[in-house]
Amino acid sequence: MSRQIIRVELGQRSYDVIVGPGELAELGPTAHSLGGVRRAVIIADTTVAELYGQRALDSLAAADLPGELLTFPAGEENKHLGTCASLYEGLFGLSPAIDRRTLIIALGGGVSGDVAGFIAATALRGLRWLQCPTTLLADVDASVGGKTGVDHPAGKNLIGAFHQPRGVLIDVDLLATLSDEHLACGLAECVKHGVIRDATLLALLEDRAEAIADRDPAALTELVARNVAIKAAVVAADEREAGQREHLNFGHTVGHAIEAFVGYDRITHGAAVSLGMIAAMDLAVRRELLTAADAARVGELLNRLHLPTAMDGLDFEAIWRIMQHDKKARDGRVRMILPAELGAVAAYDDVDPAEVRQAVDALSPA
Amino acid sequence: MSRQIIRVELGQRSYDVIVGPGELAELGPTAHSLGGVRRAVIIADTTVAELYGQRALDSLAAADLPGELLTFPAGEENKHLGTCASLYEGLFGLSPAIDRRTLIIALGGGVSGDVAGFIAATALRGLRWLQCPTTLLADVDASVGGKTGVDHPAGKNLIGAFHQPRGVLIDVDLLATLSDEHLACGLAECVKHGVIRDATLLALLEDRAEAIADRDPAALTELVARNVAIKAAVVAADEREAGQREHLNFGHTVGHAIEAFVGYDRITHGAAVSLGMIAAMDLAVRRELLTAADAARVGELLNRLHLPTAMDGLDFEAIWRIMQHDKKARDGRVRMILPAELGAVAAYDDVDPAEVRQAVDALSPA
Repeated sequence: MSRQIIRVELGQRSYDVIVGPGELAELGPTAHSLGGVRRAVIIADTTVAELYGQRALDSLAAADLPGELLTFPAGEENKHLGTCASLYEGLFGLSPAIDRRTLIIALGGGVSGDVAGFIAATALRGLRWLQCPTTLLADVDASVGGKTGVDHPAGKNLIGAFHQPRGVLIDVDLLATLSDEHLACGLAECVKHGVIRDATLLALLEDRAEAIADRDPAALTELVARNVAIKAAVVAADEREAGQREHLNFGHTVGHAIEAFVGYDRITHGAAVSLGMIAAMDLAVRRELLTAADAARVGELLNRLHLPTAMDGLDFEAIWRIMQHDKKARDGRVRMILPAELGAVAAYDDVDPAEVRQAVDALSPA
Repeated sequence: MSRQIIRVELGQRSYDVIVGPGELAELGPTAHSLGGVRRAVIIADTTVAELYGQRALDSLAAADLPGELLTFPAGEENKHLGTCASLYEGLFGLSPAIDRRTLIIALGGGVSGDVAGFIAATALRGLRWLQCPTTLLADVDASVGGKTGVDHPAGKNLIGAFHQPRGVLIDVDLLATLSDEHLACGLAECVKHGVIRDATLLALLEDRAEAIADRDPAALTELVARNVAIKAAVVAADEREAGQREHLNFGHTVGHAIEAFVGYDRITHGAAVSLGMIAAMDLAVRRELLTAADAARVGELLNRLHLPTAMDGLDFEAIWRIMQHDKKARDGRVRMILPAELGAVAAYDDVDPAEVRQAVDALSPA
């Protein structure tokens, strides 16, 4: 399968997401195609820089575009303002000095996209940027939406900005070096997209689970392209996260709280979202919105994709408190996205603690 | 003279600038009028907080809006990322936690607007904010345009974002506590607005110089309102600083370089801009764009407003180097805004060093 191009429609800020095997070699031409780019600064964490930094620089050089590579220490725990301060130091220390024709390139997973995107959003009051995600999660989630930012000790993503990239280049071959655990993280978001918008995507995941696990480029290209298209449609309809975009929080209200409760370094985001989806579907089944059979089907798929559907030791009281402090909560009122059928969801803000308690209890291993 | 309201037309991001005496007392009602605001956090430097912080909080309280006051050390030298880090600490440490219904209020001069605006731009990926400028410079310049940000050791305003406020409330009575030197800073920008767009504003400054120096509320209201209207028209035509907005750089290309050369703590921004305007007009007269009589008229007005039109010890070579590194320079090419007549300017990018040398030399005291 050759490259697929998905247009993210955001008026003047529209851009293309290019998906396919071998796309990293197209970085230089893609940067040039934006017009008026005189140099590029790649921002990557140390791990990704070692794996793909030189290939990215080579592609820029082959396109006669001066390139630089700035790195920051790998790890979610480095997604903070101090890392930004170091990157500003590196960026503003370049000689000759950067100007508005400088393109920022975020090379890496979600953290790199968030951090480099925030640097792009705030350097010289906003530089153009290009995103080259290297994880499935970043491919299907962070590549669309323009969310950038860093964490603060008081909470995740508290410091940030909406700043759309000028393009996204996804080389599915880069997923070859991704751990199975990180692959599963991305698959959790794929399942989410299926539940909120497109049941046939769930069928694709069921049919192609082995090929995806084997990192088959054609299977990955199709998977990524379809997920990007779903997210792009949601974001295009609602850039500023009211209305439709809220549907992307399916599995995340409880999921985020589980992540915070267990500790961000002790559970992956994908595993937490998987559990959050199970909890939300349990609640939806009790409300007779969703059939138990549909919920069970999604649970089985998650298990096949090596994502958890049960967890020991979850404390409802603590999780509920965290949910009320979520930045999307209003006046302590919790909103949840619940599926009515596979492929269709709606937001509910009348969720009461007793229901959430039952849903969290349902996550206990049988 | 009662309040005047100037609409800044920016599509969905349009907002009103309210100008008049006694307006600080209207802070609470103005915050409420935005709709959906549940609390407000005022950000001010220590000096302004002492002068006006309690009155601002009282106005919020009278309108039944919970209010908090966060402060940072006064002084241009504190406009940096470290100050932002402290303010994020204060903001995210508030209990109950802030949410998207929290309004940020920037109370103070240009630094407060820049810093608080940047906090608003980046907290929770963008909060609404209201600007209450307390200096003439902030009234006529920073209150329109949505520029926010902080300095970096490598240069001024290198870290920032465009983030429009939801409203601006200008109480001209607050100018009573402003030093004559700071008043002159604002007047330099008023002269600039006159030269680039409206010669009748120059006549107003000539006629009302005494009343303005005496802080007459009616004269200040008229002056501020007319300047805000000029800047609003320029910004509305061109929000993103290409084309028209560039005209606002009149006097700033050489002015910024003089500021950097002399040292930001040794010359006010207004004095540097005054010198920059003299230099630009000198260049324009030599090109036979502007008459010597018009240039002399503006020079006399600047002197009457206690702004410098000459300076000893300016080193052309150093100033030229700085100009080439300006973030608005492209490929080391310097663009200057030159007047064709009073009230009309255009951008030129064919300015050569010899011309700038003559213009800088013309700043030497006779």
